[in-house]
Amino acid sequence: MPETFESQHSHNQLQAINDGLGAGMFVQVRQMLQNMPACDVALLLESSRSKSRAQIWQLLESDAYSDVLEELSEDVRNGIIRQMVPEKLADALEEMDTDDLVETLSSLPEAVSQDLLNSMDEQDRNRADLGLSYGEDTAGFIMNTDTITLRPEVSVEVILRYLRLRGDIPDDTDTFYVVNRHDKLIGGVALTKLLTAAPDTPIENLIKISEAIPVTMDDGEVASLFERYDWLSAPVVDEHNHLLGRITIDDVVDIIREDAEHSMMSMAGLDDEEDTFAPVFKSTQRRSVWLGVNLFTALMAAAVSDMFEETLSQLAVLAILNTIVPSMGGAAGNQTLTLVIRGMALGHVSPGNSRWLIGKELAIGFFNGIIWALLIASVIAIWKQDLMLGAVIAFAMMINMVAAGLAGATLPIAMKKLNIDPALAGSVILTTITDVVGIFAFLGTATWLLI
Amino acid sequence: MPETFESQHSHNQLQAINDGLGAGMFVQVRQMLQNMPACDVALLLESSRSKSRAQIWQLLESDAYSDVLEELSEDVRNGIIRQMVPEKLADALEEMDTDDLVETLSSLPEAVSQDLLNSMDEQDRNRADLGLSYGEDTAGFIMNTDTITLRPEVSVEVILRYLRLRGDIPDDTDTFYVVNRHDKLIGGVALTKLLTAAPDTPIENLIKISEAIPVTMDDGEVASLFERYDWLSAPVVDEHNHLLGRITIDDVVDIIREDAEHSMMSMAGLDDEEDTFAPVFKSTQRRSVWLGVNLFTALMAAAVSDMFEETLSQLAVLAILNTIVPSMGGAAGNQTLTLVIRGMALGHVSPGNSRWLIGKELAIGFFNGIIWALLIASVIAIWKQDLMLGAVIAFAMMINMVAAGLAGATLPIAMKKLNIDPALAGSVILTTITDVVGIFAFLGTATWLLI
Repeated sequence: MPETFESQHSHNQLQAINDGLGAGMFVQVRQMLQNMPACDVALLLESSRSKSRAQIWQLLESDAYSDVLEELSEDVRNGIIRQMVPEKLADALEEMDTDDLVETLSSLPEAVSQDLLNSMDEQDRNRADLGLSYGEDTAGFIMNTDTITLRPEVSVEVILRYLRLRGDIPDDTDTFYVVNRHDKLIGGVALTKLLTAAPDTPIENLIKISEAIPVTMDDGEVASLFERYDWLSAPVVDEHNHLLGRITIDDVVDIIREDAEHSMMSMAGLDDEEDTFAPVFKSTQRRSVWLGVNLFTALMAAAVSDMFEETLSQLAVLAILNTIVPSMGGAAGNQTLTLVIRGMALGHVSPGNSRWLIGKELAIGFFNGIIWALLIASVIAIWKQDLMLGAVIAFAMMINMVAAGLAGATLPIAMKKLNIDPALAGSVILTTITDVVGIFAFLGTATWLLI
Repeated sequence: MPETFESQHSHNQLQAINDGLGAGMFVQVRQMLQNMPACDVALLLESSRSKSRAQIWQLLESDAYSDVLEELSEDVRNGIIRQMVPEKLADALEEMDTDDLVETLSSLPEAVSQDLLNSMDEQDRNRADLGLSYGEDTAGFIMNTDTITLRPEVSVEVILRYLRLRGDIPDDTDTFYVVNRHDKLIGGVALTKLLTAAPDTPIENLIKISEAIPVTMDDGEVASLFERYDWLSAPVVDEHNHLLGRITIDDVVDIIREDAEHSMMSMAGLDDEEDTFAPVFKSTQRRSVWLGVNLFTALMAAAVSDMFEETLSQLAVLAILNTIVPSMGGAAGNQTLTLVIRGMALGHVSPGNSRWLIGKELAIGFFNGIIWALLIASVIAIWKQDLMLGAVIAFAMMINMVAAGLAGATLPIAMKKLNIDPALAGSVILTTITDVVGIFAFLGTATWLLI
């Protein structure tokens, strides 16, 4: 009888292994690891700090290495690879599927991957070189070459005989590809068609003309095609329509998650591959660039306030209220920025509708401006018993909300045109704009009207 | 010959249709729509503003309705459904797969979905009621019931004859499920096994015991199992192991994207389903709750500054520098918060390692504190020619960075225990903490040492 999954299953497993390691029960831990699927071992490694990672890896059978390495995230994998004996590593790499082999090699330092390539046998070196030649983030980089191809004139019966002799079909195969004698792709035949067709049907009658993916296509684009058309696999071709390999949904799922996470991580100034359990110093160092940029923008905002030192020294209440307008502008602008970045990722934003979109966000900024200007004016008029001060902050709020809507919508669209990642740079530039505009509008108007 | 995909393909299509609508060439647009796959029509609708959406929908053939509705995001779909004639809507719903039918009904107002259910024939009403009974975000809600089941004692040859007679296999089938006479799940047989096995092999020899998904499992958990084990489909069972249906990867891909997007959208205070092209007033209203919360926290920060009005009025330079420490705390805390939220989503954070994780982030906060305290002290000492002022801001920076690390790691872990969504509430509470602690530390120390 099959088991059903328990929600707490993997947490319990993790706990048991950690307890085992802590108590020095290495024999038991080794046994537990032997019974775990590779993906669970990978999750266990990713959920452990570096010390436990090294212990777990040492207790793992070496024939599990390649499967586990395939499942690990880049950062964790590289940490482990750096401590492996080169021969064992080369053995593990040779057993990998082409796409995982290529990905692993490309994430290693040039010198290391070159050494590894040299120690591989020719066939493995060739398939790795081919994948690497297409460059990261392309269809060629994530494709597999273990494709079964058919000829159009053969009958279903002959194919079934061939498959029974062959005895093995690569993982995640839902379609066989049909090619002509020059290896040019004609189309695909679904496995389900082979099962339901009469034995004497020629393959060509079962072909579904399917679109092929050019080997140079960006992997994010590949992922959105899979998502849109609900594919399980797709053929990859060169510019002359020669079949080179296929891409399967399991790799695409990883890209979809990574792309969706990328925006969130970048907007907080984190590297996508940042490992939750990385050592303290490594993490501190990695995050410092972003904090440095943030300090710079905070100093810029301070420099704007500095221009109004005279005003601030005369009216301390302005110093107290000085953060409100920038904060609201930042929050509203961030909403717009996030929405537009997601819209671009989903393929909804195009040159044809981006002007309309900017106009819409500008209008929202305007109405938000009215709402929050009225509200803050009332709050300040009551709190500080000063109508004029309320009017000043309301005016600044109005200006900054419109600026936030405009900047939040324009920045990502403009950055994408310039090939700058809007998730990474967008939020810093946006905050700088809303800070500077907010402070300038508030203290400027105050200097003019209240002093 | 199959076509390869052009990057600009869908944007061009969108442009052509928009141009056609603008020029009133409805006959041509209708023809273009007829030749488009449902998923492309859905993308077109999602990329258009409401006015064009209504026009495009009117030009669409009614037999395409159900396929297009299945592909649309919730917000856009509900907008269109609200304008459809009830009879046409009921027709479209009856043609949907169970999972899409259930999802559509559940997103409609109770009264509307009840009317629709009543107008359906009994069979469709029953399958909808069953799915709805499991509740949103469960395995039962996203499963399909179109499963082909086999008996263990039958031979491959008999199955192949049966399949040829049947002639049709449901979409995305990679595995047939084997059940005993009480409909209890025994395991699965991959389609590839049927193709490679000798005709006289009994099915029971080909069975792979696969884990089954309990019908009440949370859909996010289902998605991470699919991702971890690279499944294409999985059987769903009740508590007595009766086979109820199956879940396929195409639905899981949507959940993976939605879950990953959810954190990003929530952290900016947006609804996941927020439609990029929603009308201005609807968007303004939706975003106002978050801005209201943000205004409240900004006023709280102002109230803290207000406690130091006397100090601020004596030293205007404090007003100028007052935003730097809160800003750095916010940025550092947000990095920690984002990393922990992602770690929880990936299943890396568990009760067994969360204490270590909090300790790690606290340590990073401490080292970040030292680095940025030293740097800001030097900047201020040079800019304002005041060593003591540099020391004050450095001390406040130190305190706030530690507070940011602690709050950023503790908040999401505590919120998850309390079943509060950390992505939505986490960033507001974090900002409030880093603002209040930052201002208090800076102005408090300044009052004590400089006045």
